[in-house]
Parts: sequence; structure tokens; C-alpha cells
Amino acid sequence: MSAAYEGAVADLIAELGQLPGVGPKGAQRIAFHILATDTADVARLAEALIQVKAKVRFCATCGNVAEAETCRICLDPRRNDTQICVVEEPRDVVAIERTREFRGRYHVLGGAINPINGIGPDELRIRELMTRLASGVVTEVIIATDPNVEGEATASYLSRLLGSMGLAVTRLASGLPVGGDLEYADEITLGRAFEGRVRLHA
Amino acid sequence: MSAAYEGAVADLIAELGQLPGVGPKGAQRIAFHILATDTADVARLAEALIQVKAKVRFCATCGNVAEAETCRICLDPRRNDTQICVVEEPRDVVAIERTREFRGRYHVLGGAINPINGIGPDELRIRELMTRLASGVVTEVIIATDPNVEGEATASYLSRLLGSMGLAVTRLASGLPVGGDLEYADEITLGRAFEGRVRLHA
Repeated sequence: MSAAYEGAVADLIAELGQLPGVGPKGAQRIAFHILATDTADVARLAEALIQVKAKVRFCATCGNVAEAETCRICLDPRRNDTQICVVEEPRDVVAIERTREFRGRYHVLGGAINPINGIGPDELRIRELMTRLASGVVTEVIIATDPNVEGEATASYLSRLLGSMGLAVTRLASGLPVGGDLEYADEITLGRAFEGRVRLHA
Repeated sequence: MSAAYEGAVADLIAELGQLPGVGPKGAQRIAFHILATDTADVARLAEALIQVKAKVRFCATCGNVAEAETCRICLDPRRNDTQICVVEEPRDVVAIERTREFRGRYHVLGGAINPINGIGPDELRIRELMTRLASGVVTEVIIATDPNVEGEATASYLSRLLGSMGLAVTRLASGLPVGGDLEYADEITLGRAFEGRVRLHA
């Protein structure tokens, strides 16, 4: 695609095409948008890219994104220290924070067990999780890895590992998405919704 | 969306969200991709953004993107000077070049007539087109504006303007897309395909 362009435009289309979710057509569209944008606005985008790499690191405690040694959530004294929610990625923290359902701490694994891509337990921040649990303050570990093959594999690995520690180990419920249509649910989700059915009155 | 993030990550998500075709979820996904990318690669993307604004300008003759006063196509002595293909945007030049059907020159209008957005003939590079035609070398003007309301309005405006100049004024054919399915064509396209039907043998 970018072979049809020359010089700086071709370079930009090639760079943009490497971003996730941006195909060749999208890269071309963004490049022409950039050409039509004020230089000052483009400089701000370029600066934001540089700054994010310069400033953002990962929280030494939980692995979430942070602009200091420790992230905002780990520093917040109002959070409940007895619950840790284990997630795969920092964006999962944001998704759960948005629900306002959870006031405990997080632990970001940095991925999920995926033997095909060479990611085993040692590539994830599981050792750091064990160190945090050793203090004995935590009473419940909520496993909130993705409900897919890798996330489930990680959840059962963690559940076996933590099973003998006298902690409550829980997993987010699987079931029908709220606002969804029962007839369009895939059979595995519908099966899980049956399995996990809840009694409405005694 | 980005309110859930802080500092540099929030800034980057906000900047990325302004790009065409990148929604809030896409901006978040790209931002985390950037966080996981080597600083050198991110610097290259930032530099490509800066360079494209510093280097690229618009050809003084045809309005296409160029890295010099005049673009590659206008400078090419092998192109046919008697035909000018009028398009809305530089990316239309790339699309037509890819067909290898046309060896003449181009003229990029920089948009299409759109009264709602305040774009009339004076906002487009129509005066520049008239200047190019005044030399008398051009014998055919091929109008290749988009086959939508604004593109058609621009085509009929140009066709009236050029009608008395003794030039052939042509318009790209409308019809069924090649490889498409007749039953899925919308009624306007199918109507155009009927109107423009071509005799296969005398």
C-alpha cells in the first residue's frame, strides 16, 4: 500500500500500520489526517508518545501502570487490604475500577499462561503475588483473568497454587451478558449460565 | 474513557482518540501497545509524525502531496499532457495510479462542493485548474470526484464551467463493482448500471 507513496508520507504510513487495529487503509487515512492537521497539534501527539515512554513505568507492588514507584491504587489508604483482585493487564484494572464494585487491591500478572507463545508461570508476576500474600493480611484472592483458554488455564494454575494457603480463592462469574439476548448467546456461555444459576428465593 | 487513567497515559489516549477511525477503545489499545513497545520504535513513530509535517507540502501545479515544489507525477516527462484527471484528494491519485489505466496528469481539488460545511467552488483549487487549461494543451478533462452527493455536485459544476471550452469533459463510469453480487447492489447503482449499459456486439 505505502509503496504508492514516497518519502515522509510512506514512512508515516508504514509506522502507523504497525499499531494494533490500524490496517493499511486506516494508516493511509490517519496519515492524510495528519497532513491536514496543524503542526502544533501533531507535535503534541508526537510529544505524548515520547512522554508516555519516558514517564510511565509499572508499579513495583501490583504491576499496574504508574508514574511513580507505586501506583495510585496501591498508595490509596482507603482501599481494603484483605482482598486482592488478580488480572492479566493494566487495562483490566481500569475496566474493573469503572464498575465501582471493588475497593480492594490489584495484582497485574502481565499476561496469561500461553505455552504456544512460550509464556509459563515464570513469565508472569506470580512470584510477586506469592510475596504479597506471605504477609497474611489478604483473606481473599479474586481471580479475574479473561474467560478464554489462556485466562482459564491461568485461573486453574493459581487456584491450585493458592489452594493450601487457607485463603478464599474466587473467580468472576461466567454467564449471560446483561442486556444481551439469550438466543444469541454461544452454547458455552449459556451452559455456564445454567451451571452457575442463582436461587432467587429459598 | 481516559478519565480512568492518569498523567501521560491519559494524555496519550486523548491525543490518539482524535485520529480518524480510532475510537476510545482503540486509543486505549494503541496506548498499551506503545507502553509495551521499545522506546526506539516509539521515537521512530514520533519522528515520522514530525517529519511528515516538516517535509510534505502540496504540489504547486496539481495540489498532490509532494516533497518539493512540484510532485513526481507533474515532473515526469513521460506522462500525457493532453489529459487531466480531476480528483478530490491526494489519496484518490494513489488509488487511480494503482490501476495503471491512466498516464495523463492530475488535478487535486482539495475536497468537493459541500454547502453545509461552507465549501463552495472558491474553497477548491478550481481557479488553478482553469489556469492550467488556459494553455490549450489539454484536450480531455476526466472528472473523477467521488460518486456521492458532494462529488456529483462538484462534477456537474465543473462540467458546466468547462462545457464551452471545446474540451472533452468525461466522468468515470458508475455501475456494478467487479466481483460484486448483482442482488446486493443498491438500487441507485443498479439503475446507473442499466443506464450505462454497453453494447457487446453490433
